[in-house]
Amino acid sequence: MKKKIIIVGGVAGGATTAARLRRLDEDSQIIMFEKGEHISFANCGLPYYIGGVIEKREKLFVQTVEGMSSKFNMDIRNLSEVIKINREKKTVSVKNLRTGEIYDESYDYLVLSPGARPVIPSIPGIDTANNLLTLRNVKDTDAIKNFIDDNKPEKAVVIGGGFIGVEMAENLHELGIKVTLIEMANQILAPFDFEMASILHKSMIEKGLKLILEDGVQSFENNGTKVILNSGKEIDTDLIILAIGVRPESELAADCGLEIGPRGHIIVNEYLETSDPSIYAIGDAIEVLDYINGKPTAIPLAWPANRQGRIVANNIYGKKEKYKGTLGTSVVKVFDFTAASTGNNEKTLKRIGIHDYEVIHIHPGSHAGYYPGASQISLKLIFDKKSGKIYGAQAIGKNGVDKRIDVIATAIKGGLTVLDLPDLELAYAPPYSSAKDPVNMAGYVASNIIENAVETIQWYEIDKIVENGGFLVDVRNPGELKLGFIKGAVNIPLPELRNRLNELPKDQTIYVYCQVGLRGYLAARILTLNGFKAVNLDGGWKTYS
Amino acid sequence: MKKKIIIVGGVAGGATTAARLRRLDEDSQIIMFEKGEHISFANCGLPYYIGGVIEKREKLFVQTVEGMSSKFNMDIRNLSEVIKINREKKTVSVKNLRTGEIYDESYDYLVLSPGARPVIPSIPGIDTANNLLTLRNVKDTDAIKNFIDDNKPEKAVVIGGGFIGVEMAENLHELGIKVTLIEMANQILAPFDFEMASILHKSMIEKGLKLILEDGVQSFENNGTKVILNSGKEIDTDLIILAIGVRPESELAADCGLEIGPRGHIIVNEYLETSDPSIYAIGDAIEVLDYINGKPTAIPLAWPANRQGRIVANNIYGKKEKYKGTLGTSVVKVFDFTAASTGNNEKTLKRIGIHDYEVIHIHPGSHAGYYPGASQISLKLIFDKKSGKIYGAQAIGKNGVDKRIDVIATAIKGGLTVLDLPDLELAYAPPYSSAKDPVNMAGYVASNIIENAVETIQWYEIDKIVENGGFLVDVRNPGELKLGFIKGAVNIPLPELRNRLNELPKDQTIYVYCQVGLRGYLAARILTLNGFKAVNLDGGWKTYS
Ligand SMILES: Cc1cc2nc3c(=O)[nH]c(=O)nc-3n(C[C@H](O)[C@H](O)[C@H](O)COP(=O)(O)OP(=O)(O)OC[C@H]3O[C@@H](n4cnc5c(N)ncnc54)[C@H](O)[C@@H]3O)c2cc1C
Ligand SMILES: Cc1cc2nc3c(=O)[nH]c(=O)nc-3n(C[C@H](O)[C@H](O)[C@H](O)COP(=O)(O)OP(=O)(O)OC[C@H]3O[C@@H](n4cnc5c(N)ncnc54)[C@H](O)[C@@H]3O)c2cc1C
Ligand SMILES: CC(C)(COP(=O)(O)OP(=O)(O)OC[C@H]1O[C@@H](n2cnc3c(N)ncnc32)[C@H](O)[C@@H]1OP(=O)(O)O)[C@@H](O)C(=O)NCCC(=O)NCCS
Ligand SMILES: CC(C)(COP(=O)(O)OP(=O)(O)OC[C@H]1O[C@@H](n2cnc3c(N)ncnc32)[C@H](O)[C@@H]1OP(=O)(O)O)[C@@H](O)C(=O)NCCC(=O)NCCS
Ligand SMILES: [Ca+2]
Ligand SMILES: [Ca+2]
Repeated sequence: MKKKIIIVGGVAGGATTAARLRRLDEDSQIIMFEKGEHISFANCGLPYYIGGVIEKREKLFVQTVEGMSSKFNMDIRNLSEVIKINREKKTVSVKNLRTGEIYDESYDYLVLSPGARPVIPSIPGIDTANNLLTLRNVKDTDAIKNFIDDNKPEKAVVIGGGFIGVEMAENLHELGIKVTLIEMANQILAPFDFEMASILHKSMIEKGLKLILEDGVQSFENNGTKVILNSGKEIDTDLIILAIGVRPESELAADCGLEIGPRGHIIVNEYLETSDPSIYAIGDAIEVLDYINGKPTAIPLAWPANRQGRIVANNIYGKKEKYKGTLGTSVVKVFDFTAASTGNNEKTLKRIGIHDYEVIHIHPGSHAGYYPGASQISLKLIFDKKSGKIYGAQAIGKNGVDKRIDVIATAIKGGLTVLDLPDLELAYAPPYSSAKDPVNMAGYVASNIIENAVETIQWYEIDKIVENGGFLVDVRNPGELKLGFIKGAVNIPLPELRNRLNELPKDQTIYVYCQVGLRGYLAARILTLNGFKAVNLDGGWKTYS
Repeated sequence: MKKKIIIVGGVAGGATTAARLRRLDEDSQIIMFEKGEHISFANCGLPYYIGGVIEKREKLFVQTVEGMSSKFNMDIRNLSEVIKINREKKTVSVKNLRTGEIYDESYDYLVLSPGARPVIPSIPGIDTANNLLTLRNVKDTDAIKNFIDDNKPEKAVVIGGGFIGVEMAENLHELGIKVTLIEMANQILAPFDFEMASILHKSMIEKGLKLILEDGVQSFENNGTKVILNSGKEIDTDLIILAIGVRPESELAADCGLEIGPRGHIIVNEYLETSDPSIYAIGDAIEVLDYINGKPTAIPLAWPANRQGRIVANNIYGKKEKYKGTLGTSVVKVFDFTAASTGNNEKTLKRIGIHDYEVIHIHPGSHAGYYPGASQISLKLIFDKKSGKIYGAQAIGKNGVDKRIDVIATAIKGGLTVLDLPDLELAYAPPYSSAKDPVNMAGYVASNIIENAVETIQWYEIDKIVENGGFLVDVRNPGELKLGFIKGAVNIPLPELRNRLNELPKDQTIYVYCQVGLRGYLAARILTLNGFKAVNLDGGWKTYS
């Protein structure tokens, strides 16, 4: 039987569903409603178009209404807002935004991919701040671009240090605008833990950005040309980008009685069906299960939206395919750095009550050090000490970061543990990697913890230990101490350690550290095998500092 | 009990074993013999040092005899050749190459990591070709570098299109030398199948290299300044690099009666023990099992040598760790291109009698097309049509190639099939990937074959089909035909297809193709769903051409 399928939202999730539906059936009637002017545009490219990295506006349009309609033989109605779902009648009410006309359209299946919209809190002065803009779609993009062209702002404030805030800060900075980034938390980019995000903080400040952490906006004054912070700080600005997060576009779904989650997301089952089996929902608007910990979460990214769109199309055609949850793999460019992560971070694990995890930090080269162009990758791996299960990974560096996170994300999906990472046979030639790839190395270092070859402590624990009289040895060469060192440490370079064991107390734990953790590990092995109790500072000076 | 361990060979496998042994036990006596002057050098960097990419010779030395001896408290004897293994006495006879002195040294465990040496066939004139050099170690490197400095060769011939031959050809070319590369087979780089290697052939020729395929050297004349080929061609040259492969350094092992394989490799079990349980062997000298097909093979690469070294050290300390076989993941830079592969190629599968595999070729962008700098990746995936088991993958392109092969290598180790590749949640932001990563896309395209959504034929099948009266439709836009087209094709652009179905025969298979395979797939779906029998040309014009 010929099916009539209505899709609400014509971008990442919606357009993907529509395309796949047509490939499954030539006869079905597919109507895609999009309230904006544009369908199938590159949301993710918007900040880079504003920054001039993407030069041509037309590049943002992956498909046009005309092109997609003809290629896929579908009925695409832009500037058409679905304003009501009438579940009993299986119709939607649609408002033609060109004419104001309202009409009903019936469906056999309804797919909701309405996305999310920027959170706009009711801060005093926000209504009169006419230099305050948000970024979600092409219209917003045009507005920001026009504002910049017309007003040539010298100073901008970006509120919110999430992906979009950080990308906007970079792109405005590249336009020559002096940017202040304000973030309420003690770090930008929530998927990273603090010590990892700190690498980015440093680099952004070096680039000339002003970074204000642990502070929020109290009010806007003078039509938004003055931003007053909770701390009392006042910032003059010509432009404000508000990017403190998104909230799901779930009013339509809520109004017709579909089940909605605690933070406003549409609830779906593993087949992506809402509480009404004729209605599917996908993308930024839905709640998903966290692939690692199985708990509900919401991860507004493009991969899930695209993946879910294809699954829903299949399920409408009877496939009963499951969406297996979202890992949250993500990546962002921050000036010269790439920051990527997958799975859960420490903050998440603690929040859900998992505390008995282990962490390692390593700082290997992106490729063999003797081949030019290698740079350091800071790679953090979080895992269960008993099973070796990988909880998550974070990496930051100038090259090869996305590769290592993709490999670990794949390992997770393959059910591999940290004990399997040394066994990944990855491609090696000097321009690309080392004979032991950083992911192999992370596997070795993690395995050593599981196999009790070494005990480690974390960067945030060592100061207290030294304060309480802990014995700390810096095993770097004397020349390296000018990079900075931990107060209270005795310097015994690794090559001298075996001959100077008599300088060390037998009745006390010896804490050791080096630059990145490797020599500390070697020292810890020497000490342990010589009958001392030794503990290595994970990640060395690099992570500590 | 204190163990005495002797290691033969002080570079990739040997040095790794030694380092790990020390980390497992402070008391064992470790003696590492190396017949060359240098231990622990960067074999893989040698071509790039010759080419001047690596500027400083000292960069090649990862560890020195002095440094490693003191850091790891071991007895490292360079310029010391082990000339005999006396298994009953558990001693080796060693020749001090400085003094000529020969002495015996006893062992509890012996680890052989003697590597391999360049194959030097007895071609007429080779003995008097004093401009003919091979490349394996630092001495060879110095010889080539000195030859170039002293003789300023204008022309060079590289014999052999394997990794080392290709890297040397590139590096000599970059020095301004006119290079001719001669290869006996119809393609360079055996890990790739012909149509993939062809991409590299084209690019090398464009760079100005002379590439001679399917021809071998018959003789050298005039002290190597003239190379005569089997075809009768004569080439004048100032320098010859011979790089037609390596043979295992297994004479020591053979002489003392250890089991040796059909191509001269040392045979080991899964614990890397030779036929004598006190003797382990690793690296280029051993036969391993192919991870994909389980058959014996030999894969002389650095990752296996390093991995095996660590496993052997563990096993000497009672761990009973298994080496699980070698996938053969590899990567090589060829001018602006990166070429990487993992697992088995078609040639290998055919050779071992597997013929019922499926192949797909796709040509996605390295990252989102709207973000600058994206380039095309040619990605080939070979898999079992029934189970979806991944046999192997090959990729060639300018960016992001190593990442995709590493992801697929990881998927293989995780036991994932092509049906799981769409579900890999990989990091996406415009500078790095697309919302559907190329690996996801390969998974979708392969899944469609398994699920019989589309039937495909390969680039080498289509000409014959058209010859025999097959009906072929080119679904590209008329403007694209100037890129080249397949003779005998009718042009019906995809957007017009639905309205022109009446032009197509109902009683005949319709073969379709486009530029890269995507629109061909869309056309095939339209045709199939409209009751035609349709077959898509896998990889489109791009792979065919
Ligand atoms: C600036 C920016 C940068 C981003 N960068 C990245 C990135 O680098 N990587 C990444 O993974 N993700 C990124 N994202 C997130 C990604 O774009 C989203 O996760 C994805 O687009 C979600 O798909 P969706 O279909 O749920 O929503 P959308 O793609 O937003 O589509 C929803 C559409 O539905 C329409 N709609 C809503 N309600 C109605 C209605 N009632 N009637 C008709 N139409 C309606 C909306 O107008 C909208 O166009 C970025 C997002 C933005 C805004
Ligand atoms: C030019 C070049 C480029 C390469 N590029 C790459 C690459 O990009 N990627 C990659 O994965 N692999 C590459 N390789 C291969 C890689 O270097 C080898 O696979 C790896 O070194 C093998 O390790 P091994 O320990 O078995 O042998 P080796 O590292 O060669 O070490 C063996 C050592 O044993 C010594 N020895 C032998 N017999 C005796 C004896 N009787 N007594 C004392 N000493 C002895 C030899 O002198 C030698 O130094 C390259 C190799 C070369 C030559
Ligand atoms: C582009 C868009 C309309 C989706 O279209 P789509 O047709 O599903 O996706 P693609 O063009 O990538 O093509 C994928 C299809 O082609 C097939 N395909 C791709 N390359 C192929 C090849 N070389 N040979 C054969 N088939 C191929 C795939 O198998 C897949 O088909 P399937 O789903 O039936 O298996 C939708 O993703 C979109 O609107 N994107 C822009 C918005 C967005 O994603 N924003 C967030 C990121 S900025
Ligand atoms: C360098 C060489 C001597 C091996 O030394 P190695 O000590 O095994 O290797 P690395 O220096 O990479 O260190 C790895 C060890 O340090 C540990 N480690 C690495 N980084 C660490 C960190 N940040 N914190 C704690 N431990 C760390 C690893 O766990 C591993 O120890 P383990 O094996 O006991 O688990 C040997 O590989 C060699 O000679 N290489 C050059 C030749 C070569 O490989 N050629 C082919 C490629 S060009
Ligand atoms: Ca610990
Ligand atoms: Ca086929």
